[in-house]
Amino acid sequence: MCAPHKFDDALQSSGSTDIWSLEPERSSCRLLLAAQQLVELVTPFFYFTTSDFTVYVIDVGGRKFSAQNARVNEANCMQTPCENDVVFDGLNFQDLMVRQGTIDSPPKTPFILGFECAGDVEQVGENVKNLKIGDRVAALSEYKAWAELVLVPAKYVFAIPSDMKYEDAAAIIMNYIVAYILLFELGNLTAGKSVLFHSAGGGVGHALVQLSQTVPDVKIFGVASKSKHEALQDKGITHLLERGSDYVSEVRKIAPEGIDIVLDCLCGEECNRGYSLLKPMGKYVLYGSANVVTGETKSIFSAAKSWWQVDKVSPSKLFDENKSIAGFNLRHLLFQQNQVEYVSGILDKVFDLWTKKKITPVIDSKWALEDVSEAMQKMHDRKNIGKLILDPSAEPKPKPATPLKSKGKSIDKEDKEKDKKKEEESGSNSAGATNGSHSPQGGTQAS
Amino acid sequence: MCAPHKFDDALQSSGSTDIWSLEPERSSCRLLLAAQQLVELVTPFFYFTTSDFTVYVIDVGGRKFSAQNARVNEANCMQTPCENDVVFDGLNFQDLMVRQGTIDSPPKTPFILGFECAGDVEQVGENVKNLKIGDRVAALSEYKAWAELVLVPAKYVFAIPSDMKYEDAAAIIMNYIVAYILLFELGNLTAGKSVLFHSAGGGVGHALVQLSQTVPDVKIFGVASKSKHEALQDKGITHLLERGSDYVSEVRKIAPEGIDIVLDCLCGEECNRGYSLLKPMGKYVLYGSANVVTGETKSIFSAAKSWWQVDKVSPSKLFDENKSIAGFNLRHLLFQQNQVEYVSGILDKVFDLWTKKKITPVIDSKWALEDVSEAMQKMHDRKNIGKLILDPSAEPKPKPATPLKSKGKSIDKEDKEKDKKKEEESGSNSAGATNGSHSPQGGTQAS
Repeated sequence: MCAPHKFDDALQSSGSTDIWSLEPERSSCRLLLAAQQLVELVTPFFYFTTSDFTVYVIDVGGRKFSAQNARVNEANCMQTPCENDVVFDGLNFQDLMVRQGTIDSPPKTPFILGFECAGDVEQVGENVKNLKIGDRVAALSEYKAWAELVLVPAKYVFAIPSDMKYEDAAAIIMNYIVAYILLFELGNLTAGKSVLFHSAGGGVGHALVQLSQTVPDVKIFGVASKSKHEALQDKGITHLLERGSDYVSEVRKIAPEGIDIVLDCLCGEECNRGYSLLKPMGKYVLYGSANVVTGETKSIFSAAKSWWQVDKVSPSKLFDENKSIAGFNLRHLLFQQNQVEYVSGILDKVFDLWTKKKITPVIDSKWALEDVSEAMQKMHDRKNIGKLILDPSAEPKPKPATPLKSKGKSIDKEDKEKDKKKEEESGSNSAGATNGSHSPQGGTQAS
Repeated sequence: MCAPHKFDDALQSSGSTDIWSLEPERSSCRLLLAAQQLVELVTPFFYFTTSDFTVYVIDVGGRKFSAQNARVNEANCMQTPCENDVVFDGLNFQDLMVRQGTIDSPPKTPFILGFECAGDVEQVGENVKNLKIGDRVAALSEYKAWAELVLVPAKYVFAIPSDMKYEDAAAIIMNYIVAYILLFELGNLTAGKSVLFHSAGGGVGHALVQLSQTVPDVKIFGVASKSKHEALQDKGITHLLERGSDYVSEVRKIAPEGIDIVLDCLCGEECNRGYSLLKPMGKYVLYGSANVVTGETKSIFSAAKSWWQVDKVSPSKLFDENKSIAGFNLRHLLFQQNQVEYVSGILDKVFDLWTKKKITPVIDSKWALEDVSEAMQKMHDRKNIGKLILDPSAEPKPKPATPLKSKGKSIDKEDKEKDKKKEEESGSNSAGATNGSHSPQGGTQAS
């Protein structure tokens, strides 16, 4: 949907063959609107600013590259060897962390969010051999994926099966890579074992359930918000546990011998709980820290507190107890540790399972880029069953013609009351705010 | 070779069906001599005493059982449901730790050492269904295996392939179970990966090399004493490194990207070194603490120091670095954590590999029970290439008719000078000492 762009010859001739620059010839596009929408979500560490949007061209490895800066309203498409005309983007919990400032090594603001997308290849760099224009692909991008045109180094771009829908590719790529590595590369899941995980109703949760079911006799302990239990009833989770309840006691009753594999995306106190539930030869894997986003307090200290609550473990304790602990961080693996070849091998296995109809991504809802704030709110509130997808071609939801009574609703429910009070007192900040409502049913209005 | 014994009806009728007691009708046998021999090895925490040998009947799970105490010279055979007429025993580094008092939860002294043996079933308990008299078996015993007759709970006794020699069974059972679990259950070894381990010339070392070779393109980094390098040249170790050298720098030169699996049986500073060598997604496994036995200092502090040197690891660090740490302790797994069914499944796989001729145990030498001190000394001095086997039917080496000039040589080389000095001063302690020499060539005199 974006017009093709010529590569910047000047940059090419400067000696870099890795990074390509686009001529800033695009007119303002939908992403700018999405960014404005995001600004409405007030959090202490929000990266977007309301004025002078600028896009920095940054080497994906983290090293800054001296390419040009371009105003977002001139060219909001990121750039590196392989250019992707994006059809669908995936939304991850990680994006919430970025928005709240709780992710490590964030890029300089302002920048475009998003770590995955799927679509057609629109242009390829000179040295790219494995891809050609028109290829149907999915990509893992270090930020910048929530756009209509995304530039990603060719190594992070993967051909998808010919009969896979783009939205399925966007829903599969990150979630199933993560789930596969957790279960098979770190958890060593084999027949008869038990596995426990949180956020069982989310995108990774569904992937974990389906991949676990490819192994005989696996007992799945899934923790999810009570409101999701009905929808998850028939998904194959052996023991559905309630988020916020004393699930540890319940697990101990059901499986007094302990659990083989505990997967923890919450961190904080869950680390110690998760470790304590392991049976001998059990494996605990920390793969996220969602608690820093949805924890009870929303302050600069909540992230730090979440880590403080994690006990350090001595290898000698593991030796005594026959236990393992592992950490998994796909972003670091891809963009700091250069293990894309390994990840690509995992994706091959995932696509193979999809081709054999062993896995089917579950999509909660699709959203226009303009409605990203609402989509994020839904994820934050843990109301999604499956994956949230952004569709850059989708029309945004109709917005009310008049300004809302309240400024775009804060992501902090606790802050709602305060906001209301403030507004009642001043009533000045709501000017220009668009629809900030977060209907629980979400949007499936996209094509 | 031991006469069959009747079970103690009184004990049986007392309500226990798990523990059986033997009538103390055996005359003193070779094990007593072996024990006396051991006493000559002077170390600070030696468990044997020279007088009033008593054998306690203890439930293998660790719970004390109120059976009778019997003088060793009356009945030195331990007891529980399945009774093994022992043909061969294995000697492990763990036995050195027991002898030096650096193992956790040691039994009350005096007791009989040894964790593994192989032979025929001589008698079975009432409730034993899976074994019958005459079965060819190997057993994992919590201590007490270095004897001519061993009583082991039936669950720790495993049938061996019909064409497997007893000495091979004794050499395989513990070493290959450990190596298999390290590589495949914890290390997740797959094609193309690299693995590093210490003590490459020992029993577990040979098992690790052979099992690694069952996977294509595995790069094996083996650390061994320089003196063993020639013997290990053709064993399939990709990079043979020298114990005591700066092997870490050498590994970094050969594999700057790091190692996939680091197996550490030394502990102490090696923990931190091993962890530092891991590549992303790499796994470090601690499975022993041999450094507490052969460390430079031989004091009560050496064991503690070895643990102090180990850095604690936070799960969040593992999360950042995409690394895993695991501990493995077969003894705890079997006798404290009741995971014998799991271990039995591993042994099935090991025996299957043996049947397919994928693995062949390497036996360094066989020893009479009376020569156990010399065998232990050889292991302590790291002079063995492969497994040391004790053969209760073997004739001991001829001993000099006259008392030696020195008291049985201390296991501490550093102490030799002191000992010599002391002897020169007093000359009184050597009375009754038998041959304590530790010839480097070891003994292959057994049948």
